[in-house]
Amino acid sequence: MNTKPRVLIVGSMALDTIEAPGGKASNILGGAATFASLACSFFAQPVPICVVGEDFPQEHIDLLAGHGVDTSGIQRQEGKTFHWEARYLDDFDERETLDTQCNVFADFRPLLTQEQSEAHHLFLANIHPSLQLSVLDQMRGPKIVGCDTMNLWIDTEPATLRQVFSRCDILFLNDSEATLLCQARELRRAAEELSRLGPRCVVIKKGSHGAFVYYQRQVFLAPAYPLQKVIDPTGAGDAFAGAMMGYLAREGNIEPETVRKAVILGTILASFTVEGFGVDALRSLKTEEIIARYGELAEMTTFGRVTL
Amino acid sequence: MNTKPRVLIVGSMALDTIEAPGGKASNILGGAATFASLACSFFAQPVPICVVGEDFPQEHIDLLAGHGVDTSGIQRQEGKTFHWEARYLDDFDERETLDTQCNVFADFRPLLTQEQSEAHHLFLANIHPSLQLSVLDQMRGPKIVGCDTMNLWIDTEPATLRQVFSRCDILFLNDSEATLLCQARELRRAAEELSRLGPRCVVIKKGSHGAFVYYQRQVFLAPAYPLQKVIDPTGAGDAFAGAMMGYLAREGNIEPETVRKAVILGTILASFTVEGFGVDALRSLKTEEIIARYGELAEMTTFGRVTL
Repeated sequence: MNTKPRVLIVGSMALDTIEAPGGKASNILGGAATFASLACSFFAQPVPICVVGEDFPQEHIDLLAGHGVDTSGIQRQEGKTFHWEARYLDDFDERETLDTQCNVFADFRPLLTQEQSEAHHLFLANIHPSLQLSVLDQMRGPKIVGCDTMNLWIDTEPATLRQVFSRCDILFLNDSEATLLCQARELRRAAEELSRLGPRCVVIKKGSHGAFVYYQRQVFLAPAYPLQKVIDPTGAGDAFAGAMMGYLAREGNIEPETVRKAVILGTILASFTVEGFGVDALRSLKTEEIIARYGELAEMTTFGRVTL
Repeated sequence: MNTKPRVLIVGSMALDTIEAPGGKASNILGGAATFASLACSFFAQPVPICVVGEDFPQEHIDLLAGHGVDTSGIQRQEGKTFHWEARYLDDFDERETLDTQCNVFADFRPLLTQEQSEAHHLFLANIHPSLQLSVLDQMRGPKIVGCDTMNLWIDTEPATLRQVFSRCDILFLNDSEATLLCQARELRRAAEELSRLGPRCVVIKKGSHGAFVYYQRQVFLAPAYPLQKVIDPTGAGDAFAGAMMGYLAREGNIEPETVRKAVILGTILASFTVEGFGVDALRSLKTEEIIARYGELAEMTTFGRVTL
């Protein structure tokens, strides 16, 4: 029996087709809950709550189970799995969505079992904010709630989104989403503004530029791990959040020092994620590799004091 | 008599007109050598080598002299001072050059006195690479040479530029310039590629995202200091380079630990620079404020070890 603390992860499980400068991969395992769960699995027991179709290969479920993921919350339904197609441009900072077929995901209504509702840690990946609220309503006093969102909901569901924010502890969002939500251009002011909506910790993800974290009125600047070669950025943000939530669950606290370590582990898991198509690089990742890269990043950011 | 080590700074001194979201400032003191000299003055004695016209106000020379700058290399010539007009867009990451009038700067031919040519530290700000070469030819064994450039010379003078790079120790450039010069998209590979052209230290400036430094096969990631309010980004890169060169001159070595501290001081001076139009924020800057911000940045980037 797995005695690791559980982290409920509510979001999409998908079959993606990705074009990037280095090649193309068709119908590969994707979805926010997938990336978050695999990254989380190094620190805690992820319990993804999601829906897949009849076409979803059993080997993907087996892959997750092999990483210690509790797969009992993955519902298989009649129809096809959520499918997403995208193309990354040369600099990876921009992508074009070529096709989105919601399929069974269109009717996704997360229903928690009693055991699931008692989890202490919850990550609400990017889904409709009213579904995020319905999950929050089912939970019985979670200790740490993280949530992600996207520009679509910022534009179309601002009021519902604010309700979600007011009930979460950690808000994950991209820098472009932060500036869409806030008056302030500067991330420092944007993060302060966002924290007033409820979340005690605001994590602004900046892709290859790292993350800006605001917690207890303190700023923490986490660089991205500098890679030799990026293959496919899909899932980096979800892996970041999954790892961070997993480490916080493992440590059982949300002290500033723990949050900083969790953020760096998020950055490290994101760095591995983008080194392969889909979940390729996470498949065979070892804890020792995570530790090694963590140490490298510590070395790359250290500097001594000055006297003038 | 000033006994600080001297840093020769060859570049433009200008009168700028800047439009930014927060306002407009006309005919204010600008130019790469100006920003670099003021930033450098906190650590060493800057000796700007540049040319100004008859319209250049004496109060600007006095301001520099008041900061300990050796103004003897500022030649005043018949005609008007180099004038540059630019407009920053809302996100500050893009700017439009509205007007460039080279005026006396068009015929700028830096000629060093014997004393100047014996300086141990040289910063070649962005000027035509053939002028950068002519300065290098006049120097008598400088210990540390830093150089900056711009996309124009990368496009039009690639061969001359490579000669400059082969003779400098520290290369400063923007991320967009790095990717213009290199095959590699990833900064880590771009920096390796650039270091093979000669410079032992490659500093890739990323604006509000900080700097990526490659030195002795090691990566150093320097975040930008997170500001509440950016006013005018003009001169940030020059202040960065001036401060870095100044601190290296002050310490008299180019050990990795010294380089890291110099980079962070560069980042700090750049952060102050952008908080006002032109040199406004540098005018009254105190060493204590630099030290305080340095300490804050150290605090914002620290994280502990993990065991998994």
